[in-house]
Amino acid sequence: MPKRGMLIVLSGPSGVGKGTVRKAMFDQGGTDFQYSISMTTRQPREGEVNGKDYFFVSKETFEHNIETGEMLEYAQYVDNYYGTPMQYVKDTLASGKDVFLEIEVNGAMQVREKMPDGVFIFLTPPDLMALKQRLVGRGTETMTVINERIHQAVTEIKMMRNYDYAVVNDKVDLAVDRIREIIRAERLRVPRVYPDYAQMLESKQVTETENGKDA
Amino acid sequence: MPKRGMLIVLSGPSGVGKGTVRKAMFDQGGTDFQYSISMTTRQPREGEVNGKDYFFVSKETFEHNIETGEMLEYAQYVDNYYGTPMQYVKDTLASGKDVFLEIEVNGAMQVREKMPDGVFIFLTPPDLMALKQRLVGRGTETMTVINERIHQAVTEIKMMRNYDYAVVNDKVDLAVDRIREIIRAERLRVPRVYPDYAQMLESKQVTETENGKDA
Repeated sequence: MPKRGMLIVLSGPSGVGKGTVRKAMFDQGGTDFQYSISMTTRQPREGEVNGKDYFFVSKETFEHNIETGEMLEYAQYVDNYYGTPMQYVKDTLASGKDVFLEIEVNGAMQVREKMPDGVFIFLTPPDLMALKQRLVGRGTETMTVINERIHQAVTEIKMMRNYDYAVVNDKVDLAVDRIREIIRAERLRVPRVYPDYAQMLESKQVTETENGKDA
Repeated sequence: MPKRGMLIVLSGPSGVGKGTVRKAMFDQGGTDFQYSISMTTRQPREGEVNGKDYFFVSKETFEHNIETGEMLEYAQYVDNYYGTPMQYVKDTLASGKDVFLEIEVNGAMQVREKMPDGVFIFLTPPDLMALKQRLVGRGTETMTVINERIHQAVTEIKMMRNYDYAVVNDKVDLAVDRIREIIRAERLRVPRVYPDYAQMLESKQVTETENGKDA
C-alpha cells in the first residue's frame, strides 16, 4: 500500500491573488502534486475547457452531489455553485500523491473539518502588515476609509488563526517559493514520515521472528 | 519589543553526522540564525578556541551552573560535562534572533521540556530506510548482526517520535538544504507570525479610538 498523499489547501481573503499564485506555481512546473479541478454550475467562458479549468455541470448534478456527500466543500456565489468533488481528492491521496486545492476561506474551513491533517496555507495581502504605517502616516485618508480598512484587516487577521501557515503575497514568485518550501518541509514532519519507518520496522520484526524460529 | 526568536534544535543518534551537517551549514554562510556554543569541561584539543568551538570551563564552574539552573541541557560523557548555557540562548531569543543548537538526543529532550515551542529536527542515518532491503536481501549477514541492527533501528525510530521533523542525512548538502527549508517554513507558521499581526491590530485599534475621540 503506498503512503497516503498530503492535502495542501491554499486560501485567503477575496482578491488576495490565490488564483494568480496557484497558476504561476503550476505554470513554472516541477510541481510534484496534483491540482484538484473545481466543479461549477456557471457557464464556461470563452476558451475554458471542461475538465481542465473546471468541471462544468448542471445545477441538478451539483445539488445531487451535495445531497449524496460527494462535495468536499462548496459555496454558492450569486446564482452559481462552486466546489471540490470529493472522489478525485480521495483517490489521489490514496494513490500516494499530494493534492493541491485553491479555494475560498469558507470552503477551506469545510475541508479543515473533514481533513484536519491537511496543510492549510493562508495567503495574506502585502498591505496587511504595511497598513499601520500607512494609516498612522500622514493622515490623508478619511476616518471612513480608515475604519473600513481596519475592519477588513481585523476580519482577515482573524481568519488566519484557522490556518497552519501565513504567506504574504508581496510578489507572486516569492509567494510561490514560500509555498513550495512549506510543502517540502511538511513532507519531513514526523507524523507524516513515521508510519513509513514504523511499517519498515514491523516487517523487519516479522523477518526477525521467522528467522528466529527457523534457527 | 522585537519579535521573539525561534529555537532550532538539531539532534539524532550518535554517529549520524550532526556536527558535520551543522558545520557545513554555517560554513556555507547565509545562516540568519545564531549557533549556540556548547560548554564543556574537557580539555581543548589542538586548534580549538575558547568561545568559538566551546566554552572551556572547570568542573567546578560547570557543576555550579547545573546547581543554579544555568544549563539549558547537559550530559556527562566519560568524565566530562557537555551542555548548553541557558543565558546566551535566552538573550538571543529575546533579541529576536533565532538560535540553533546541535546536541545529543538526551539533551534535546531536556530542551523540549523547557522550550516546547522550539523546532526539533531529528537527523536520521540514510541506511535506516534502506535497512529492510539490505536485511531481507541476500541473507549474507549473520543473525547476530541482523538482530543488532534491528535493535539499533528500533531504538532510533522510537527517538524520532519526540521530534517535529525527520531529515535523512544521505548527503550533507541535501540535509543542509532540508534543514534550511524547515527553518524558513517554520517562520511562516501562524502561531509564530500571528502575534505580529495581532500587535499591529492592537495598535491600530488604539489609533482608531483616539481618532474617534478627536472627531
